Amino acid sequence: MIRVLVNGADGRMGSQVVKAVYEDKDLEFVGGVSVTNIGKDAGELAGVGALGIAIREGLGQALDDIKPDVVVDFTTPKVIFENAKTCIEHGVNMVVGTTGLTAEQRGELAALAEQRKTSIFIAPNFSIGAVLMMKLSEEVAPYLPDVEIIELHHNNKLDAPSGTAIMTANKIDAARKAANAQQAPDKTHESLDGARGAKVDDIPIHSVRLPGYVAHQQVLFGGYGELLTIRHDSIDRKSFMPGVILAVKKVSSRPGLTFGLENYL
Amino acid sequence: MIRVLVNGADGRMGSQVVKAVYEDKDLEFVGGVSVTNIGKDAGELAGVGALGIAIREGLGQALDDIKPDVVVDFTTPKVIFENAKTCIEHGVNMVVGTTGLTAEQRGELAALAEQRKTSIFIAPNFSIGAVLMMKLSEEVAPYLPDVEIIELHHNNKLDAPSGTAIMTANKIDAARKAANAQQAPDKTHESLDGARGAKVDDIPIHSVRLPGYVAHQQVLFGGYGELLTIRHDSIDRKSFMPGVILAVKKVSSRPGLTFGLENYL
Amino acid sequence: MIRVLVNGADGRMGSQVVKAVYEDKDLEFVGGVSVTNIGKDAGELAGVGALGIAIREGLGQALDDIKPDVVVDFTTPKVIFENAKTCIEHGVNMVVGTTGLTAEQRGELAALAEQRKTSIFIAPNFSIGAVLMMKLSEEVAPYLPDVEIIELHHNNKLDAPSGTAIMTANKIDAARKAANAQQAPDKTHESLDGARGAKVDDIPIHSVRLPGYVAHQQVLFGGYGELLTIRHDSIDRKSFMPGVILAVKKVSSRPGLTFGLENYL
Amino acid sequence: MIRVLVNGADGRMGSQVVKAVYEDKDLEFVGGVSVTNIGKDAGELAGVGALGIAIREGLGQALDDIKPDVVVDFTTPKVIFENAKTCIEHGVNMVVGTTGLTAEQRGELAALAEQRKTSIFIAPNFSIGAVLMMKLSEEVAPYLPDVEIIELHHNNKLDAPSGTAIMTANKIDAARKAANAQQAPDKTHESLDGARGAKVDDIPIHSVRLPGYVAHQQVLFGGYGELLTIRHDSIDRKSFMPGVILAVKKVSSRPGLTFGLENYL
Repeated sequence: MIRVLVNGADGRMGSQVVKAVYEDKDLEFVGGVSVTNIGKDAGELAGVGALGIAIREGLGQALDDIKPDVVVDFTTPKVIFENAKTCIEHGVNMVVGTTGLTAEQRGELAALAEQRKTSIFIAPNFSIGAVLMMKLSEEVAPYLPDVEIIELHHNNKLDAPSGTAIMTANKIDAARKAANAQQAPDKTHESLDGARGAKVDDIPIHSVRLPGYVAHQQVLFGGYGELLTIRHDSIDRKSFMPGVILAVKKVSSRPGLTFGLENYL
Repeated sequence: MIRVLVNGADGRMGSQVVKAVYEDKDLEFVGGVSVTNIGKDAGELAGVGALGIAIREGLGQALDDIKPDVVVDFTTPKVIFENAKTCIEHGVNMVVGTTGLTAEQRGELAALAEQRKTSIFIAPNFSIGAVLMMKLSEEVAPYLPDVEIIELHHNNKLDAPSGTAIMTANKIDAARKAANAQQAPDKTHESLDGARGAKVDDIPIHSVRLPGYVAHQQVLFGGYGELLTIRHDSIDRKSFMPGVILAVKKVSSRPGLTFGLENYL
Repeated sequence: MIRVLVNGADGRMGSQVVKAVYEDKDLEFVGGVSVTNIGKDAGELAGVGALGIAIREGLGQALDDIKPDVVVDFTTPKVIFENAKTCIEHGVNMVVGTTGLTAEQRGELAALAEQRKTSIFIAPNFSIGAVLMMKLSEEVAPYLPDVEIIELHHNNKLDAPSGTAIMTANKIDAARKAANAQQAPDKTHESLDGARGAKVDDIPIHSVRLPGYVAHQQVLFGGYGELLTIRHDSIDRKSFMPGVILAVKKVSSRPGLTFGLENYL
Repeated sequence: MIRVLVNGADGRMGSQVVKAVYEDKDLEFVGGVSVTNIGKDAGELAGVGALGIAIREGLGQALDDIKPDVVVDFTTPKVIFENAKTCIEHGVNMVVGTTGLTAEQRGELAALAEQRKTSIFIAPNFSIGAVLMMKLSEEVAPYLPDVEIIELHHNNKLDAPSGTAIMTANKIDAARKAANAQQAPDKTHESLDGARGAKVDDIPIHSVRLPGYVAHQQVLFGGYGELLTIRHDSIDRKSFMPGVILAVKKVSSRPGLTFGLENYL
């Protein structure tokens, strides 16, 4: 049994982690930390009934008292760097779902983790499907280097293109360059601006924004008389949970800092 | 039996019309006219074996001699206006697949056809599937006014967006305006130019150009927790043939000039 | 303003109707009836805050007291027939979302409604997208009579094929028969049982059941070198709400009994 | 330059290989063998103009005279085993596109090739896209073991399910078993026979047969609130050609017998 403490255990994400850890037969939920809801039962907040584990304040003290194997952190960008240092200094492995760490901060944490021989895992995306989509796309790119991306989201998403689409384009282009794969020339003339999408690393990205969609992406590879399409549909926010659980189980296997769920696939 | 003469009978399109007319049990192929391949058997050129009907020169003379019920014209933009006048003046119904007639010319032909009590049919698109896609989209628009279009073509297509996509957008917007249907506000900010496509009547059109595609279009309607998508795939140039045959059979039913296959559906 | 009473106002569906009526500027929520939660505020139960309207018992008495224009009923199969008679006898128009009325009962209600000059509306499916999918499919069938249906649902759905798929097949087959449209012969031999799906009116239906799906259907029409596909994705249960609101607004326009949302589209 | 001889050079497939070899800058077309069209120019038969290389009879003699680096064979099941032995005995590497070799024959050829230190490559499918689809599906299976396959072909295909679909199911099931991945239970009851498709290794396969389709397959993986779909569309028979050319270039890299294009990807 891996003993798991959740930091931010009463938040929208954190409380789902409490539930998922509680329901997994290989994991044990041993503690919840937050700055709100102190003293309330973490299980009740997560909707799984009273677990006799109260939300407490103070990550460092909680680590001293509870000695978990892994901390899962879904807190806020402001405090995540300090939280990470606290975990590493206590020699506790960590899974970070909180965004906001800069490349410099990640470098510092990597050095610290190596020195203390602990493991820290950070992921921009915990959806196994989305990470597989990117990984598969990288593999296809050397053989079918002609590619476009369509990403479709609800009309309340503020930015376009999506971060996942940009990251996918980066990875595809790196893969086809490494393989020296030659694209077909694009002779099309845009008779109306924007028709051919936004270009990231010379890959057109088309962003659809309509009510009804949640978060979807298609990667379209064109070949000689054939097409290969990889499509990911994320229909529920809970889709990130299997990725978190996978990371909790695998984090100890790679000492130092690991970035990206693809390292565990 | 409807007796059909094909003008441009030895061309890429015309020879397929010869074949389709020959194979249809309600139609009879009675003559082929062109400016090349004079004297050759029209059936052999069309790949259906010798029919004993030689390609001849001179549309007017052929109409006098053969007296067909319908002329199908797949010639060239340069000569189509003269061809159309010739047919109308001979009192012969006509199906025009040749492009290039201006709105003014169509007006003139309409007047002439009405005066001579003949029928002339002109279509920008003979694919029944494509025309149905546009018609269905018009019907959906009043109920689901939030819509985007993705059109996907081979990488040798020179323009973007496609003419069909633009026509679809025009029709959808007219339909939703007529119904006073209110769209959801688009709050997305383009962090990269072109991500949200080209706008035609406030409808985003996204143009994909990749080897492997032929001619495809998707019309995406977003609703409250649901999506309705209409997709058309044209995989072979022969897909226009059923539309031509339909037009040949229906042209006499509407005196004067008729524009667009949707009038027969 | 149309004054609306909701029967079953504290149920899963009913409470969403309360919310949707409350939020619509042309409708007024005037009363909630149920057999549970008596005395509690209908707005609080629906998550829109206190409205000062308590859930009350007894549909007949509530109609006498409140005199609504329309009753929306989401109760249970056991009581819906009595509820419907009560409404009609009170001369109140009714929108029925509850399932379970037999064809005989519908006949009886139709006669009663005509006699009392009231309107009653019953729908097996309130999703506008799903109803449009069926309507569009009927229109396409005469032109492209070769068709198959793929329906995709979550793995907890117990039956296969879905009721919507069967209804779609029935409508398509009726439409293509009415138009005397000829299908292509199916020469395929099933080397493994079930490969070609279940046949409803000679239309193959393929049922996919996987975690991650909600409720989706594709109607695939094949033509000569082309394909036309109509796809509906229902991603959230709330997708039926616009259909309920549409029915509330339109119910008075058709005296007697009306069956199916397509009558209002 | 790799010097290539084509056996069956005047056939439907063989003549396309002649063309593709002729057009590739790293390959040289040096000879064509067949049992028909003897003496005719292989380039003219392939539609690339006269190459001064006449179709000749007798594979063994041609190998002695021309000494090619690689033979590409698209002949017939009846003669392929003898052809393969001839090539190996002459020490010439071989790419086999002809079907019909049994497992026993492949074993015999493997032993012979190893003994003579030559390479022979055999593939059931030369489409790079189809092979990638299978390879990617194998990779996804351990993480998303709930999967169904939809394959769509033209209505003249005689069998269902397709060989590619069955092979895909075999590979997926082997991969998820090797990873000990647990599927969700399928509780669905078929109210109509065939609705849930044909089962291959416990994976439902649904076969659509409609005019308009060429050869298409979708592999649908369901997860927790998410879906991953891999789709391959083969729209033109020429799509197998890049796979043949790849094999010609790679065949010498693996001594002995190699089965399946995935070994070169």
